[in-house]
Amino acid sequence: MRTAYHHQLDALKRGIGDLCGLSGAAMQRATQALLEADIGVAEAVISQHESFLAAVGQAETDAFNLLALQAPVATELRAVFANLQNVADADRMGALALHVAQIARRRHPAHAIPDDVTGYFAEMGRIAVRTGGEIRDIVLSSDPDRAATLADKDDAMDDLHRRLFSVVMDPEWRHGVAAAVDVTLLGRYYERFADHAVQIGRRVIFQATGTPAA
Amino acid sequence: MRTAYHHQLDALKRGIGDLCGLSGAAMQRATQALLEADIGVAEAVISQHESFLAAVGQAETDAFNLLALQAPVATELRAVFANLQNVADADRMGALALHVAQIARRRHPAHAIPDDVTGYFAEMGRIAVRTGGEIRDIVLSSDPDRAATLADKDDAMDDLHRRLFSVVMDPEWRHGVAAAVDVTLLGRYYERFADHAVQIGRRVIFQATGTPAA
Repeated sequence: MRTAYHHQLDALKRGIGDLCGLSGAAMQRATQALLEADIGVAEAVISQHESFLAAVGQAETDAFNLLALQAPVATELRAVFANLQNVADADRMGALALHVAQIARRRHPAHAIPDDVTGYFAEMGRIAVRTGGEIRDIVLSSDPDRAATLADKDDAMDDLHRRLFSVVMDPEWRHGVAAAVDVTLLGRYYERFADHAVQIGRRVIFQATGTPAA
Repeated sequence: MRTAYHHQLDALKRGIGDLCGLSGAAMQRATQALLEADIGVAEAVISQHESFLAAVGQAETDAFNLLALQAPVATELRAVFANLQNVADADRMGALALHVAQIARRRHPAHAIPDDVTGYFAEMGRIAVRTGGEIRDIVLSSDPDRAATLADKDDAMDDLHRRLFSVVMDPEWRHGVAAAVDVTLLGRYYERFADHAVQIGRRVIFQATGTPAA
Protein backbone atom coordinates (compact mmCIF):
# COMPACT_ATOMS: atom_id res chain seq x y z
CA MET A 1 0.00 0.00 0.00
CA ARG A 2 2.94 2.33 -0.45
CA THR A 3 3.15 2.87 3.27
CA ALA A 4 6.57 4.49 3.07
CA TYR A 5 5.35 6.99 0.49
CA HIS A 6 2.34 8.02 2.60
CA HIS A 7 4.45 8.17 5.71
CA GLN A 8 6.96 10.50 4.03
CA LEU A 9 4.27 12.59 2.37
CA ASP A 10 2.59 13.09 5.74
CA ALA A 11 5.91 14.15 7.24
CA LEU A 12 6.37 16.63 4.40
CA LYS A 13 2.88 18.02 4.91
CA ARG A 14 3.48 18.36 8.64
CA GLY A 15 6.68 20.25 7.87
CA ILE A 16 4.82 22.61 5.54
CA GLY A 17 1.96 22.96 8.02
CA ASP A 18 4.50 23.93 10.68
CA LEU A 19 6.04 26.52 8.35
CA CYS A 20 2.59 28.04 7.76
CA GLY A 21 1.81 28.10 11.47
CA LEU A 22 5.24 29.54 12.30
CA SER A 23 4.97 32.26 9.70
CA GLY A 24 1.51 33.20 11.02
CA ALA A 25 2.88 33.37 14.57
CA ALA A 26 5.84 35.43 13.35
CA MET A 27 3.47 37.82 11.58
CA GLN A 28 1.44 38.13 14.77
CA ARG A 29 4.49 39.06 16.83
CA ALA A 30 5.85 41.32 14.12
CA THR A 31 2.50 43.12 14.15
CA GLN A 32 2.74 43.46 17.92
CA ALA A 33 6.26 44.89 17.55
CA LEU A 34 4.88 47.33 14.99
CA LEU A 35 1.85 48.47 17.00
CA GLU A 36 3.68 48.79 20.30
CA ALA A 37 7.09 49.83 18.94
CA ASP A 38 8.44 46.89 20.93
CA ILE A 39 12.06 46.37 19.95
CA GLY A 40 12.41 43.17 22.00
CA VAL A 41 9.63 41.46 20.11
CA ALA A 42 10.97 42.74 16.77
CA GLU A 43 14.43 41.35 17.59
CA ALA A 44 12.91 38.02 18.62
CA VAL A 45 11.09 37.66 15.29
CA ILE A 46 14.25 38.56 13.42
CA SER A 47 16.51 36.17 15.31
CA GLN A 48 14.02 33.30 15.05
CA HIS A 49 13.95 33.60 11.28
CA GLU A 50 17.20 31.63 11.17
CA SER A 51 15.51 28.51 12.54
CA PHE A 52 12.53 29.10 10.23
CA LEU A 53 14.91 29.01 7.27
CA ALA A 54 16.41 25.79 8.58
CA ALA A 55 12.89 24.31 8.66
CA VAL A 56 12.34 25.46 5.05
CA GLY A 57 15.56 23.69 4.07
CA GLN A 58 14.40 20.57 5.87
CA ALA A 59 11.06 20.58 4.04
CA GLU A 60 12.87 20.93 0.70
CA THR A 61 15.11 18.03 1.65
CA ASP A 62 12.07 15.97 2.66
CA ALA A 63 10.44 16.63 -0.70
CA PHE A 64 13.63 15.74 -2.52
CA ASN A 65 14.07 12.53 -0.56
CA LEU A 66 10.48 11.58 -1.19
CA LEU A 67 11.06 11.87 -4.92
CA ALA A 68 14.42 10.12 -4.73
CA LEU A 69 13.43 7.22 -2.50
CA GLN A 70 9.81 6.60 -3.44
CA ALA A 71 9.88 7.56 -7.13
CA PRO A 72 6.18 8.45 -7.00
CA VAL A 73 4.16 8.56 -10.21
CA ALA A 74 0.86 10.02 -11.36
CA THR A 75 -1.27 11.36 -8.49
CA GLU A 76 1.42 10.72 -5.91
CA LEU A 77 3.99 12.61 -7.93
CA ARG A 78 1.53 15.44 -8.36
CA ALA A 79 1.11 15.65 -4.59
CA VAL A 80 4.86 15.93 -3.99
CA PHE A 81 5.14 18.45 -6.79
CA ALA A 82 2.39 20.62 -5.30
CA ASN A 83 3.90 20.39 -1.84
CA LEU A 84 7.27 21.45 -3.12
CA GLN A 85 5.64 24.57 -4.53
CA ASN A 86 3.89 25.04 -1.16
CA VAL A 87 7.27 25.13 0.57
CA ALA A 88 8.27 28.11 -1.58
CA ASP A 89 5.08 30.00 -0.66
CA ALA A 90 5.50 29.24 3.05
CA ASP A 91 9.10 30.41 2.78
CA ARG A 92 7.90 33.77 1.41
CA MET A 93 5.28 34.09 4.15
CA GLY A 94 8.02 33.82 6.75
CA ALA A 95 10.17 36.36 4.88
CA LEU A 96 7.28 38.84 4.82
CA ALA A 97 6.81 38.55 8.61
CA LEU A 98 10.54 39.19 8.92
CA HIS A 99 10.24 42.35 6.78
CA VAL A 100 7.49 43.70 9.05
CA ALA A 101 9.69 43.12 12.12
CA GLN A 102 12.62 44.80 10.37
CA ILE A 103 10.59 47.96 9.73
CA ALA A 104 9.46 47.99 13.38
CA ARG A 105 13.12 47.74 14.44
CA ARG A 106 14.33 50.36 11.97
CA ARG A 107 11.94 53.01 13.34
CA HIS A 108 12.45 52.19 17.01
CA PRO A 109 12.01 53.98 19.43
CA ALA A 110 9.49 55.76 17.21
CA HIS A 111 6.36 54.01 16.02
CA ALA A 112 6.67 53.09 12.34
CA ILE A 113 2.98 53.73 11.77
CA PRO A 114 0.83 56.73 12.74
CA ASP A 115 -1.96 56.25 15.27
CA ASP A 116 -4.76 56.62 12.78
CA VAL A 117 -3.75 53.56 10.74
CA THR A 118 -2.95 51.23 13.66
CA GLY A 119 -6.50 49.85 13.40
CA TYR A 120 -5.81 48.66 9.85
CA PHE A 121 -2.60 46.93 10.83
CA ALA A 122 -4.12 45.37 13.94
CA GLU A 123 -6.80 43.88 11.72
CA MET A 124 -4.36 42.81 8.98
CA GLY A 125 -2.23 41.17 11.68
CA ARG A 126 -5.28 39.30 12.99
CA ILE A 127 -6.16 38.09 9.51
CA ALA A 128 -2.56 37.05 8.90
CA VAL A 129 -2.27 34.91 12.00
CA ARG A 130 -5.68 33.31 11.42
CA THR A 131 -4.67 32.67 7.82
CA GLY A 132 -1.39 31.07 8.93
CA GLY A 133 -3.24 28.74 11.32
CA GLU A 134 -5.97 27.95 8.79
CA ILE A 135 -3.59 27.12 5.99
CA ARG A 136 -1.60 24.89 8.36
CA ASP A 137 -4.77 22.89 9.10
CA ILE A 138 -5.74 22.87 5.42
CA VAL A 139 -2.36 21.47 4.37
CA LEU A 140 -2.61 18.77 7.04
CA SER A 141 -6.22 17.84 6.29
CA SER A 142 -6.09 18.37 2.50
CA ASP A 143 -9.63 19.70 2.88
CA PRO A 144 -10.70 21.59 -0.26
CA ASP A 145 -13.81 23.09 1.39
CA ARG A 146 -11.76 24.73 4.08
CA ALA A 147 -9.25 25.84 1.46
CA ALA A 148 -12.06 27.56 -0.44
CA THR A 149 -12.84 29.72 2.62
CA LEU A 150 -9.35 31.19 2.50
CA ALA A 151 -10.32 33.30 -0.45
CA ASP A 152 -12.70 35.23 1.85
CA LYS A 153 -9.84 36.07 4.19
CA ASP A 154 -7.80 37.18 1.23
CA ASP A 155 -10.68 39.39 0.07
CA ALA A 156 -10.82 40.94 3.56
CA MET A 157 -7.07 41.56 3.42
CA ASP A 158 -7.28 43.07 -0.06
CA ASP A 159 -10.11 45.30 1.09
CA LEU A 160 -8.12 46.54 4.09
CA HIS A 161 -5.11 47.04 1.86
CA ARG A 162 -7.12 49.15 -0.58
CA ARG A 163 -8.64 51.25 2.20
CA LEU A 164 -5.22 51.74 3.77
CA PHE A 165 -3.92 52.84 0.41
CA SER A 166 -6.62 55.47 0.05
CA VAL A 167 -5.92 56.79 3.55
CA VAL A 168 -2.28 57.28 2.62
CA MET A 169 -3.11 58.83 -0.75
CA ASP A 170 -5.71 61.18 0.75
CA PRO A 171 -4.76 64.87 0.63
CA GLU A 172 -5.65 64.91 4.34
CA TRP A 173 -2.72 62.60 5.16
CA ARG A 174 -0.65 64.63 7.61
CA HIS A 175 2.12 62.24 8.63
CA GLY A 176 4.54 63.05 5.88
CA VAL A 177 6.32 61.01 3.27
CA ALA A 178 8.45 58.75 5.47
CA ALA A 179 5.43 57.34 7.27
CA ALA A 180 3.62 56.97 3.94
CA VAL A 181 6.51 54.94 2.56
CA ASP A 182 6.57 52.65 5.60
CA VAL A 183 2.81 52.18 5.54
CA THR A 184 2.92 51.40 1.80
CA LEU A 185 5.59 48.73 2.18
CA LEU A 186 3.95 47.25 5.27
CA GLY A 187 0.56 47.10 3.57
CA ARG A 188 2.10 45.25 0.67
CA TYR A 189 3.81 42.74 3.00
CA TYR A 190 0.49 41.80 4.62
CA GLU A 191 -1.30 41.60 1.31
CA ARG A 192 1.40 39.35 -0.16
CA PHE A 193 1.35 37.18 2.97
CA ALA A 194 -2.34 36.38 2.50
CA ASP A 195 -1.82 35.90 -1.22
CA HIS A 196 0.82 33.20 -0.69
CA ALA A 197 -1.54 31.41 1.70
CA VAL A 198 -4.24 31.50 -0.98
CA GLN A 199 -1.80 29.99 -3.49
CA ILE A 200 -1.22 27.06 -1.15
CA GLY A 201 -4.98 26.73 -0.69
CA ARG A 202 -5.48 26.63 -4.46
CA ARG A 203 -3.07 23.72 -4.75
CA VAL A 204 -4.90 21.85 -2.00
CA ILE A 205 -8.15 22.35 -3.91
CA PHE A 206 -6.58 21.24 -7.17
CA GLN A 207 -5.08 18.17 -5.49
CA ALA A 208 -8.38 17.15 -3.99
CA THR A 209 -10.71 17.90 -6.87
CA GLY A 210 -8.57 17.94 -9.99
CA THR A 211 -10.09 21.30 -10.81
CA PRO A 212 -8.23 24.59 -10.46
CA ALA A 213 -9.80 26.98 -7.94
CA ALA A 214 -11.68 29.85 -9.57
CA MET B 1 23.01 7.58 -22.11
CA ARG B 2 19.61 8.69 -20.85
CA THR B 3 19.09 10.64 -24.06
CA ALA B 4 15.42 11.22 -23.40
CA TYR B 5 16.17 12.66 -19.98
CA HIS B 6 18.74 15.10 -21.34
CA HIS B 7 16.51 16.03 -24.22
CA GLN B 8 13.63 16.84 -21.88
CA LEU B 9 15.86 18.64 -19.37
CA ASP B 10 17.23 20.82 -22.18
CA ALA B 11 13.68 21.63 -23.27
CA LEU B 12 12.79 22.56 -19.70
CA LYS B 13 15.87 24.79 -19.44
CA ARG B 14 15.02 26.45 -22.73
CA GLY B 15 11.54 27.11 -21.43
CA ILE B 16 12.90 28.68 -18.24
CA GLY B 17 15.48 30.65 -20.23
CA ASP B 18 12.68 31.98 -22.39
CA LEU B 19 10.70 33.01 -19.31
CA CYS B 20 13.73 34.89 -17.97
CA GLY B 21 14.30 36.63 -21.29
CA LEU B 22 10.60 37.46 -21.65
CA SER B 23 10.38 38.87 -18.14
CA GLY B 24 13.46 41.01 -18.80
CA ALA B 25 11.92 42.29 -22.03
CA ALA B 26 8.63 42.94 -20.23
CA MET B 27 10.46 44.89 -17.55
CA GLN B 28 12.22 46.92 -20.24
CA ARG B 29 8.95 47.87 -21.88
CA ALA B 30 7.26 48.47 -18.55
CA THR B 31 10.10 50.84 -17.70
CA GLN B 32 9.60 52.62 -21.01
CA ALA B 33 5.87 52.93 -20.26
CA LEU B 34 6.78 54.37 -16.88
CA LEU B 35 9.38 56.86 -18.10
CA GLU B 36 7.36 58.07 -21.08
CA ALA B 37 3.88 57.68 -19.56
CA ASP B 38 3.14 55.56 -22.65
CA ILE B 39 -0.23 53.88 -22.13
CA GLY B 40 0.06 51.79 -25.30
CA VAL B 41 3.25 50.16 -24.15
CA ALA B 42 1.84 49.63 -20.64
CA GLU B 43 -1.27 47.95 -22.12
CA ALA B 44 0.89 45.75 -24.33
CA VAL B 45 2.92 44.50 -21.36
CA ILE B 46 -0.26 43.83 -19.43
CA SER B 47 -2.01 41.97 -22.23
CA GLN B 48 1.06 39.88 -23.04
CA HIS B 49 1.25 38.66 -19.47
CA GLU B 50 -1.45 36.13 -20.32
CA SER B 51 0.83 34.30 -22.73
CA PHE B 52 3.70 34.59 -20.27
CA LEU B 53 1.55 32.75 -17.71
CA ALA B 54 0.77 30.08 -20.27
CA ALA B 55 4.51 29.60 -20.79
CA VAL B 56 4.97 29.31 -17.00
CA GLY B 57 2.29 26.61 -16.97
CA GLN B 58 4.04 24.84 -19.82
CA ALA B 59 7.38 24.87 -17.99
CA GLU B 60 5.71 23.41 -14.89
CA THR B 61 4.13 20.71 -17.02
CA ASP B 62 7.50 19.98 -18.64
CA ALA B 63 9.10 19.61 -15.21
CA PHE B 64 6.29 17.35 -14.08
CA ASN B 65 6.48 15.20 -17.18
CA LEU B 66 10.22 14.91 -16.83
CA LEU B 67 9.76 13.53 -13.32
CA ALA B 68 6.87 11.31 -14.36
CA LEU B 69 8.37 9.85 -17.52
CA GLN B 70 12.09 9.72 -16.75
CA ALA B 71 11.98 9.09 -12.99
CA PRO B 72 15.37 10.75 -12.58
CA VAL B 73 17.48 9.99 -9.52
CA ALA B 74 20.42 11.58 -7.72
CA THR B 75 22.06 14.41 -9.70
CA GLU B 76 19.46 14.26 -12.44
CA LEU B 77 16.63 14.55 -9.94
CA ARG B 78 18.42 17.44 -8.28
CA ALA B 79 18.59 19.24 -11.64
CA VAL B 80 14.86 18.90 -12.24
CA PHE B 81 14.15 19.93 -8.69
CA ALA B 82 16.25 23.10 -9.04
CA ASN B 83 14.67 23.94 -12.37
CA LEU B 84 11.21 23.60 -10.93
CA GLN B 85 12.16 26.17 -8.30
CA ASN B 86 13.60 28.33 -11.10
CA VAL B 87 10.20 28.35 -12.81
CA ALA B 88 8.68 29.90 -9.68
CA ASP B 89 11.29 32.66 -9.62
CA ALA B 90 10.89 33.39 -13.32
CA ASP B 91 7.11 33.51 -12.77
CA ARG B 92 7.59 36.19 -10.10
CA MET B 93 9.94 38.18 -12.36
CA GLY B 94 7.21 38.37 -14.97
CA ALA B 95 4.63 39.37 -12.34
CA LEU B 96 6.87 42.20 -11.15
CA ALA B 97 7.22 43.58 -14.68
CA LEU B 98 3.42 43.43 -14.90
CA HIS B 99 3.11 45.43 -11.66
CA VAL B 100 5.36 48.16 -13.05
CA ALA B 101 3.22 48.39 -16.18
CA GLN B 102 0.06 48.52 -14.05
CA ILE B 103 1.35 51.51 -12.10
CA ALA B 104 2.27 53.27 -15.35
CA ARG B 105 -1.27 52.63 -16.59
CA ARG B 106 -2.93 53.70 -13.34
CA ARG B 107 -1.25 57.11 -13.41
CA HIS B 108 -1.75 57.75 -17.11
CA PRO B 109 -1.85 60.42 -18.57
CA ALA B 110 0.30 61.70 -15.71
CA HIS B 111 3.81 60.36 -15.18
CA ALA B 112 3.90 57.98 -12.22
CA ILE B 113 7.37 59.15 -11.28
CA PRO B 114 8.72 62.68 -10.84
CA ASP B 115 11.44 63.92 -13.19
CA ASP B 116 14.20 63.87 -10.64
CA VAL B 117 13.99 60.12 -10.07
CA THR B 118 13.60 59.05 -13.71
CA GLY B 119 17.38 58.52 -13.85
CA TYR B 120 17.14 55.89 -11.14
CA PHE B 121 14.37 54.03 -12.90
CA ALA B 122 16.04 54.25 -16.29
CA GLU B 123 19.11 52.62 -14.73
CA MET B 124 17.12 50.03 -12.79
CA GLY B 125 15.28 49.17 -16.00
CA ARG B 126 18.60 48.74 -17.82
CA ILE B 127 19.91 46.46 -15.08
CA ALA B 128 16.66 44.48 -15.11
CA VAL B 129 16.71 43.76 -18.84
CA ARG B 130 20.42 42.89 -18.78
CA THR B 131 19.76 40.64 -15.79
CA GLY B 132 16.89 38.92 -17.62
CA GLY B 133 19.09 38.25 -20.65
CA GLU B 134 22.05 37.14 -18.55
CA ILE B 135 20.05 34.74 -16.44
CA ARG B 136 18.50 33.26 -19.58
CA ASP B 137 22.00 32.51 -20.92
CA ILE B 138 23.12 31.22 -17.52
CA VAL B 139 20.21 28.80 -17.29
CA LEU B 140 20.92 27.53 -20.81
CA SER B 141 24.69 27.22 -20.32
CA SER B 142 24.62 26.15 -16.65
CA ASP B 143 27.76 28.28 -16.29
CA PRO B 144 28.52 28.93 -12.60
CA ASP B 145 31.12 31.62 -13.34
CA ARG B 146 28.62 33.71 -15.25
CA ALA B 147 26.05 33.07 -12.54
CA ALA B 148 28.49 34.46 -9.97
CA THR B 149 28.63 37.78 -11.85
CA LEU B 150 24.89 38.23 -11.32
CA ALA B 151 25.52 39.14 -7.70
CA ASP B 152 27.28 42.32 -8.91
CA LYS B 153 24.20 43.36 -10.85
CA ASP B 154 22.11 42.68 -7.79
CA ASP B 155 24.47 44.84 -5.70
CA ALA B 156 24.08 47.64 -8.25
CA MET B 157 20.30 47.28 -8.06
CA ASP B 158 20.32 47.26 -4.25
CA ASP B 159 22.51 50.34 -4.25
CA LEU B 160 20.15 52.20 -6.62
CA HIS B 161 17.20 51.06 -4.52
CA ARG B 162 18.82 52.39 -1.34
CA ARG B 163 19.67 55.72 -2.96
CA LEU B 164 16.16 56.02 -4.36
CA PHE B 165 14.80 55.34 -0.89
CA SER B 166 16.87 58.13 0.62
CA VAL B 167 15.72 60.56 -2.08
CA VAL B 168 12.10 59.80 -1.21
CA MET B 169 12.74 59.98 2.52
CA ASP B 170 14.68 63.26 2.23
CA PRO B 171 12.92 66.28 3.80
CA GLU B 172 13.59 68.01 0.48
CA TRP B 173 11.22 65.64 -1.35
CA ARG B 174 8.64 67.97 -2.87
CA HIS B 175 6.44 65.63 -4.91
CA GLY B 176 4.05 64.70 -2.18
CA VAL B 177 2.88 61.45 -0.73
CA ALA B 178 1.21 59.84 -3.74
CA ALA B 179 4.39 60.00 -5.82
CA ALA B 180 6.39 58.73 -2.84
CA VAL B 181 4.09 55.74 -2.54
CA ASP B 182 4.41 54.91 -6.24
CA VAL B 183 8.17 55.31 -6.19
CA THR B 184 8.42 53.11 -3.10
CA LEU B 185 6.42 50.29 -4.65
CA LEU B 186 8.20 50.58 -7.98
CA GLY B 187 11.61 50.53 -6.32
CA ARG B 188 10.66 47.37 -4.50
CA TYR B 189 9.47 45.71 -7.73
CA TYR B 190 12.82 46.28 -9.43
CA GLU B 191 14.77 45.18 -6.40
CA ARG B 192 12.73 41.97 -6.11
CA PHE B 193 13.11 41.31 -9.84
CA ALA B 194 16.91 41.26 -9.55
CA ASP B 195 16.70 39.22 -6.37
CA HIS B 196 14.72 36.45 -8.07
CA ALA B 197 17.30 36.34 -10.87
CA VAL B 198 20.04 35.96 -8.27
CA GLN B 199 18.13 33.06 -6.69
CA ILE B 200 18.11 31.28 -10.05
CA GLY B 201 21.82 32.02 -10.41
CA ARG B 202 22.51 30.51 -6.98
CA ARG B 203 20.85 27.28 -8.02
CA VAL B 204 22.91 27.13 -11.20
CA ILE B 205 26.04 27.55 -9.09
CA PHE B 206 24.92 24.89 -6.63
CA GLN B 207 24.09 22.51 -9.47
CA ALA B 208 27.46 22.96 -11.11
CA THR B 209 29.68 22.98 -8.05
CA GLY B 210 27.74 21.25 -5.29
CA THR B 211 28.52 24.25 -3.09
CA PRO B 212 25.93 26.87 -2.16
CA ALA B 213 26.81 30.38 -3.42
CA ALA B 214 28.10 32.65 -0.65
